[in-house]
Amino acid sequence: MRKSYLMTPGPTPVPSEVLLAQAKPMIHHRTPDFSLVVRECVSGLKYVFQTEKSDILIFASSGTGAMESAIVNCFSAGDKVLVCYNGKFGQRMAQIAKAYAVDVTILEYGWQTCVNPSDIANHLQANPDTRGVIITQSETSSGVLNDVQAVGEIVCNYPDCVLIVDSITGIGAVDCKTDEWGLDVVMTGSQKGLMLPPGLAAVSVSAKAWRAYERSSLPKFYFDWKKYLKNLEVDTTPFTPAVSLMIGLSEAIKLMREEGIQNIISRHERLAKATRFGCEALGLKLFAPPNGRGNAVTPVWVPDGIDGKKLVSIMKNKHGVTIAGGQDDYAGKIIRIGHLGYFGNFDIITTLAALEMTLMELGYEFEAGSGIRAAETILMEDSK
Amino acid sequence: MRKSYLMTPGPTPVPSEVLLAQAKPMIHHRTPDFSLVVRECVSGLKYVFQTEKSDILIFASSGTGAMESAIVNCFSAGDKVLVCYNGKFGQRMAQIAKAYAVDVTILEYGWQTCVNPSDIANHLQANPDTRGVIITQSETSSGVLNDVQAVGEIVCNYPDCVLIVDSITGIGAVDCKTDEWGLDVVMTGSQKGLMLPPGLAAVSVSAKAWRAYERSSLPKFYFDWKKYLKNLEVDTTPFTPAVSLMIGLSEAIKLMREEGIQNIISRHERLAKATRFGCEALGLKLFAPPNGRGNAVTPVWVPDGIDGKKLVSIMKNKHGVTIAGGQDDYAGKIIRIGHLGYFGNFDIITTLAALEMTLMELGYEFEAGSGIRAAETILMEDSK
Repeated sequence: MRKSYLMTPGPTPVPSEVLLAQAKPMIHHRTPDFSLVVRECVSGLKYVFQTEKSDILIFASSGTGAMESAIVNCFSAGDKVLVCYNGKFGQRMAQIAKAYAVDVTILEYGWQTCVNPSDIANHLQANPDTRGVIITQSETSSGVLNDVQAVGEIVCNYPDCVLIVDSITGIGAVDCKTDEWGLDVVMTGSQKGLMLPPGLAAVSVSAKAWRAYERSSLPKFYFDWKKYLKNLEVDTTPFTPAVSLMIGLSEAIKLMREEGIQNIISRHERLAKATRFGCEALGLKLFAPPNGRGNAVTPVWVPDGIDGKKLVSIMKNKHGVTIAGGQDDYAGKIIRIGHLGYFGNFDIITTLAALEMTLMELGYEFEAGSGIRAAETILMEDSK
Repeated sequence: MRKSYLMTPGPTPVPSEVLLAQAKPMIHHRTPDFSLVVRECVSGLKYVFQTEKSDILIFASSGTGAMESAIVNCFSAGDKVLVCYNGKFGQRMAQIAKAYAVDVTILEYGWQTCVNPSDIANHLQANPDTRGVIITQSETSSGVLNDVQAVGEIVCNYPDCVLIVDSITGIGAVDCKTDEWGLDVVMTGSQKGLMLPPGLAAVSVSAKAWRAYERSSLPKFYFDWKKYLKNLEVDTTPFTPAVSLMIGLSEAIKLMREEGIQNIISRHERLAKATRFGCEALGLKLFAPPNGRGNAVTPVWVPDGIDGKKLVSIMKNKHGVTIAGGQDDYAGKIIRIGHLGYFGNFDIITTLAALEMTLMELGYEFEAGSGIRAAETILMEDSK
């Protein structure tokens, strides 16, 4: 017997309460019992998305389905959109938009640089006919947190331009004030801060985004927002929903309401800070820039002379701790420690201890226990 | 405490083995452990779809997602397709095709009439540039079983025309010989014969369908078949899969392999026959035509003077047996008894007994026990 720890930025660990709720006997989706589940999921996600004004729509799909839904419901072929990215998933939004013949302009930053809101302001000033700005709030691949609040302040001045925020790895880990910040479309996936298995995705849709919907002529059916909205009026879904995942979501939402959204975000801040301090105490260098470090995932450079893939493999196979490696250009060069969703103080301690033991085995020189010590300081301070 | 029985044509009951497999702690999807799950799901679905030649692709979506995938991957705007239907779900295929500006010709039959293969042959002869024929094998809304084997024999003569079969409510309940019958695209959903919660959908893609893919210019991303095929080469998925449902599927497949696909279909034949005989013994009239009665669901006319909605409601609220009512024009006029997936002899007995008690309560006159007696005769004969 060896206990396993899933320290990746999605899928994330699922609480037993949620796993067991999902294991209940199947019920039919066109019943009052399931309508209660739909209502609780929608109202719970409004709470988590911090919105009262936007509609919440839930799809049986991965997060990528929600991303595609934002494109096909807001735009027409040839519409000008600006996609800003500093990582793999932001890039995917550009790929989806291009697949639908949307006219994409890209603001590409390195994976270690935050999106600069002034660049967006300048672009919109020069191109006032832009129909959408697309940005990732918390980039899974690079750990970078972009300032979507600042972008919201810019885009709100353009009545025909919607702000689309991929917060798949953000919601539930970093603050995301959908209404207050003027975010027109925000999306998330179930296997992240919502503490569920993958298979559900959700979007919030503002009044401005609904106006974009009315203009949009891109073909759509399964992800057609209006079909979902119309069915929500009678607490149901246009197509068979992922019943067990929805029941799991209603259970996860109970847990989130109990803790409170601001407390959830503070917990993530504490865990992220402890992870960063722990890694730095070991002499490791953080990957994300100081002005853009999110709470969901901490990417760290693999030290010189150490094989990054071997590090991840020893962590998993010897210690049972699954972390993520780098993606694309950073494969083998960085590791990514996820702390997004159902995580507590001792998950960070466990991971840092496994990291210390792995680094020792690989011949990296440092003072054993120093990472844990640094993390403890943060975890104690912030738990006061 | 009252036991509940889900006798609907989807979602269907999920075996405890599958429910518990899904309740295991979450694992990451980019791991050798999950690749094993992917391999088992694909090879198991090939077994269930009775195909060695076609590729099997699995989506995190409802069945409607798989339906949309067939349209966007096989066609271009303006392509001529023939959609044949005798129910609500066949009609949906036409709606999806139209949403993508495919040039749709409809062969519409009443909900109580089988699709006539000669009509298809005549249409293709007159319109040899037709790029696709779309048909529902087992229509959930009407219970009608269409002869897709006969349609396969016609369409195989047209090298640039693909045969798309919606077998969402067929696979696992009625025979569907994908290779032998020349079915180019066959689709199913998880919450039907596969005995899983909803949230997964699968399609089989023949070499001919891949040639259609190469010609197709409709926009696509989330449902782009090639992305799934490419990732399958390394036993993974392009987007985060519905991990817990896939683990459930691999467990359900174990159960299906143990029973054997032909035995599964025979069991469904027996249960459907017992249901029909039982209902007829009560003096009820069957809805589907004698030449097109599937094994998945038995629709029955509500007798004159009985309120169909009240019947369904008493079945559920008093006896705990959930059956489905009629859809669209047949709401309140027919009931539908599902026996698709994880069903055995005594589920039919239970349902008929609840139906007898409900009919007695509603003042319908018949010999109590006669439905059960008729069903027993079939269940005994066929269990020999």
